[in-house]
Amino acid sequence: MYRAPVEDIAFTLKHVAGLKPALDAGTFGDLGEDLVDAVLGEAGRFATDEVAPLYKIGDEQGAVLKDAAVTTPPGWKELYRRWIDGGWNALSGPEEYGGQALPTMLGVAALEMWNSAAMAFGIGPTLTMGAVEALDKHASQELKAIYLEKLVSGEWMGTMNLTEPQAGSDLNALRARAEPVGDGTYRIFGQKIFITYGEHDFTDNIIHLVLARLPDAPAGTRGISLFLVPKFLVGDDGSLGARNDVFCSGLEHKLGIHASPTCTMIYGDGFGGAKPGAIGWLIGEENKGLACMFTMMNNARLAVGMQGVAVAEAATQKAIAYANERRQGKAASYAGAGMAPIVHHPDVQRNLLTMKALTQTARAISYCCAHAMDLARVSVGDEATHWRDRANLLTPLAKAFSTDVGVEVASIGLQVHGGMGFIEETGAAAFYRDARIAPIYEGTNGIQAIDLVMRKLPLGGGEHVYGYIVELAAVANAVRTSNLEGFGRTADALDEALAELTHATRFLQKMSADGRSDEALAGATPYLRLISLAAGAAYLAQGALADQGRIALCRFFAENLLGEARALKDRIIDGAESLAAAGKMLISA
Amino acid sequence: MYRAPVEDIAFTLKHVAGLKPALDAGTFGDLGEDLVDAVLGEAGRFATDEVAPLYKIGDEQGAVLKDAAVTTPPGWKELYRRWIDGGWNALSGPEEYGGQALPTMLGVAALEMWNSAAMAFGIGPTLTMGAVEALDKHASQELKAIYLEKLVSGEWMGTMNLTEPQAGSDLNALRARAEPVGDGTYRIFGQKIFITYGEHDFTDNIIHLVLARLPDAPAGTRGISLFLVPKFLVGDDGSLGARNDVFCSGLEHKLGIHASPTCTMIYGDGFGGAKPGAIGWLIGEENKGLACMFTMMNNARLAVGMQGVAVAEAATQKAIAYANERRQGKAASYAGAGMAPIVHHPDVQRNLLTMKALTQTARAISYCCAHAMDLARVSVGDEATHWRDRANLLTPLAKAFSTDVGVEVASIGLQVHGGMGFIEETGAAAFYRDARIAPIYEGTNGIQAIDLVMRKLPLGGGEHVYGYIVELAAVANAVRTSNLEGFGRTADALDEALAELTHATRFLQKMSADGRSDEALAGATPYLRLISLAAGAAYLAQGALADQGRIALCRFFAENLLGEARALKDRIIDGAESLAAAGKMLISA
Repeated sequence: MYRAPVEDIAFTLKHVAGLKPALDAGTFGDLGEDLVDAVLGEAGRFATDEVAPLYKIGDEQGAVLKDAAVTTPPGWKELYRRWIDGGWNALSGPEEYGGQALPTMLGVAALEMWNSAAMAFGIGPTLTMGAVEALDKHASQELKAIYLEKLVSGEWMGTMNLTEPQAGSDLNALRARAEPVGDGTYRIFGQKIFITYGEHDFTDNIIHLVLARLPDAPAGTRGISLFLVPKFLVGDDGSLGARNDVFCSGLEHKLGIHASPTCTMIYGDGFGGAKPGAIGWLIGEENKGLACMFTMMNNARLAVGMQGVAVAEAATQKAIAYANERRQGKAASYAGAGMAPIVHHPDVQRNLLTMKALTQTARAISYCCAHAMDLARVSVGDEATHWRDRANLLTPLAKAFSTDVGVEVASIGLQVHGGMGFIEETGAAAFYRDARIAPIYEGTNGIQAIDLVMRKLPLGGGEHVYGYIVELAAVANAVRTSNLEGFGRTADALDEALAELTHATRFLQKMSADGRSDEALAGATPYLRLISLAAGAAYLAQGALADQGRIALCRFFAENLLGEARALKDRIIDGAESLAAAGKMLISA
Repeated sequence: MYRAPVEDIAFTLKHVAGLKPALDAGTFGDLGEDLVDAVLGEAGRFATDEVAPLYKIGDEQGAVLKDAAVTTPPGWKELYRRWIDGGWNALSGPEEYGGQALPTMLGVAALEMWNSAAMAFGIGPTLTMGAVEALDKHASQELKAIYLEKLVSGEWMGTMNLTEPQAGSDLNALRARAEPVGDGTYRIFGQKIFITYGEHDFTDNIIHLVLARLPDAPAGTRGISLFLVPKFLVGDDGSLGARNDVFCSGLEHKLGIHASPTCTMIYGDGFGGAKPGAIGWLIGEENKGLACMFTMMNNARLAVGMQGVAVAEAATQKAIAYANERRQGKAASYAGAGMAPIVHHPDVQRNLLTMKALTQTARAISYCCAHAMDLARVSVGDEATHWRDRANLLTPLAKAFSTDVGVEVASIGLQVHGGMGFIEETGAAAFYRDARIAPIYEGTNGIQAIDLVMRKLPLGGGEHVYGYIVELAAVANAVRTSNLEGFGRTADALDEALAELTHATRFLQKMSADGRSDEALAGATPYLRLISLAAGAAYLAQGALADQGRIALCRFFAENLLGEARALKDRIIDGAESLAAAGKMLISA
């Protein structure tokens, strides 16, 4: 069973992602290392002792819908209660509404642990936190006064309602509509799908944030507004009033994260005989709903990236434990009696080290992204711009690379278990199932790669990315001049990968500049992986410079996994033409 | 829904894997192209129209155990009946017992189609065919007379009972035992796990082949014998007699292939009040059971490889169909009204082309393996040795590369479906679940890689593999001298990959020769992928030389996927030391 790797997490935050220097510089006020350690330790304990034991029943029984009400698996409601009682929902919420306003770095570290213990549990509060952020930045004082405190504490949960059957990655096609009543409220009508925790029994009320169109709104994404629609209307004193005209008409039967109810939500269909139209309140300005959503998009994407790291960590722990128990065959390195634990077989070691190294690179990238978000928040002027650009650059990496790693590592982990891996009781298969959603939701990884190439490479006049590459190259140089033993080819391999990255970056920027967007788009996915591998290698090296016990894994990554960089560069630069030529034959007449 | 790609399959058999020249040379007697086409066409029709429609109910309802009896999903029993009535079980069985004795190439082509339509269906008869092969080669005339005709027709099914909880990849630890009764029969005792179709309602009788130890047998694998244990004893006239003391005590709850019952089988526990001890008959010589099993191992491994090809094909078809239907966003190459079908997006094209190219390379490798098996059977002298070596070399590629491709392609296919991919109703997730078993059973892919490096590279005094590389290089040359347009960098990329392959081969042979087996073992998995990619590229090129409509995909593979070769070579040669250094820390104290 999962044990939160508190030490590894703390080390990566402090010595790779920049938390230690930030604490030392007083960047986060009087936040000190003691409190950081205490928070991580307590979160680790809660994840290990309270959340993880309920994973299996959640997976097996799942959420159940009956008469428009969703029941979560046995014990989950009580778990959620203990979790909010522990103050965990409020960790990074605004102080004004009862939050602890701790840095995003700590928030995502805790998030990793909740998700490792049970991804279907971790995803719920992530939506609430997104709602808090949107309301805090865009809602009126009246709405904030009514809703924020309870959302920050977790007494109520929030949801995000974007997707409709015809409008997924492309929200231009969104159809839900909102009619002004004249008293400041709106009546909302429409169907939303794939709504995570759209209905459940964790909390008395559920606060839906819903994208919809006003009458005569412009077509496309410039005609979309954001509304707050509570499940139960709320009186001025905070008491719950009438049931609103929104209900859950169906739960998806999913491959994984079974305990997380994925709802079809119907707005304005006259639920329970009500006058049709769910009552909602406008958040932010009319027709600016998408901008409000974008506010929290980076955080949401990073949160999903943490799910990739989380499931990779859990799968790695499980596989290493199994490989130390299971005995089959003989191994040169095993001198004991009987069959060798399979962890002694080099091929099994390759699998486990690949899992461990990929997990640590994804974690480092994600925490560095969180660090950039934190510094963007506390900085001013050019520095704020720099960190905002950095957070924007790293967000698609944190989301897409980490979630690809989640799937890859879960799959290897299942394989390490042999036949037992395919049996559900073992638990390795559940990670393989759960992991598969993360590359899809919150913008598919293909969308992330396109975002990286089309919107992030141009940051800072196209120069921000080169500044980043220079920073990574400095790590290669530090390894070279460290005179530490055991790094092998690390410095050279990193330099080579960075040269490939530079080359590929120039190529993609040129394609975009020349209006050859299809060639830039064709290279997007391999580019995202290329920059992630190079960054990951540098981060592992940075960690290894701070702790020599980490050199061996860093070297394994550099000499075994980083070599993919050249193939990725070739794919980006030489691959587009053949892709275009062959791609035509895929299109049906 | 799956439609059998009969044309693609026939083309690959004839023009890539060597069936056409073999037919023209009369290698298979009077077997002509007409019959080949008729068999493939009919198999395709049956797979498409009869098997595929029952896939979903099989996945959803699965096999059910009650009172030691297994019920297969609704319609499956009748499907099996129609399938054997069509003569499909007898396709490659021996003529003497009613089989059609068609080449393995046709057998695996049909097998691909059954497995694409429903992997849980295709796996059952594969075990029967293995039993036929073992009995045909090793059983006494008496046993053959009683059992073979009914196993060839499919009236009875066969099973293979190797695995025990402590004995999976390593059969040394096998404990099941057999006591001679004195009348030529034996009493079998023990527990076997993971027995595919160990119990079911398809047929009146089930013929179990069981590995067990005789009293005083030598320890290890040299003390294992093979026994035939029927579910019902069989009279001399072929009538069913008493129930034997073997029963199914449990079904595994698996990630995928739900309709295939995976049984725990109990031998000799006094089932139904019987005198304890399942009655069995020895197959082949005492203590030579493993040799009997090895007879059919190559065929069984190739059969599992076909499952990888099969699920990849089914997943690819589904993803391409969905990408042509689903509309989201705008695309430069789409001039129509409204949102573009997502197949127009370059990143989606990359996914689909990767799926298509990997599927075709895995298919080509597998069919070439079947071709080598066929030629080994009909040849004599040096030629027979050559083809046996070739079949032995290609078997681990066919098994491991194809099944890795199955998982990889199924995962990409799910991704192409976006959110819908994670919903079970769509069917993409089922492929992702089913595909995951194939890299595990019939020898994990790690075992295949070790087999390749330790047992197959030494073939022909270590020279056979270089002969193979020379053949692949001739294809690169043929591309270069063809003067056909559209091949791009194919010839150069293939030559480069073959140079990496040669380099890696020499290195691994040297490590083995120097007794540095851990370094050879560390490179096994990347080596298997390297040789498979190089072989696959050559096969795609060979197909493209025969049909110019295939050049574009061949070039896509060469310019987008083959580049991995260098990284794989580096991993093999430079990776072992860092693997050994880092691997130590995985071992628990």
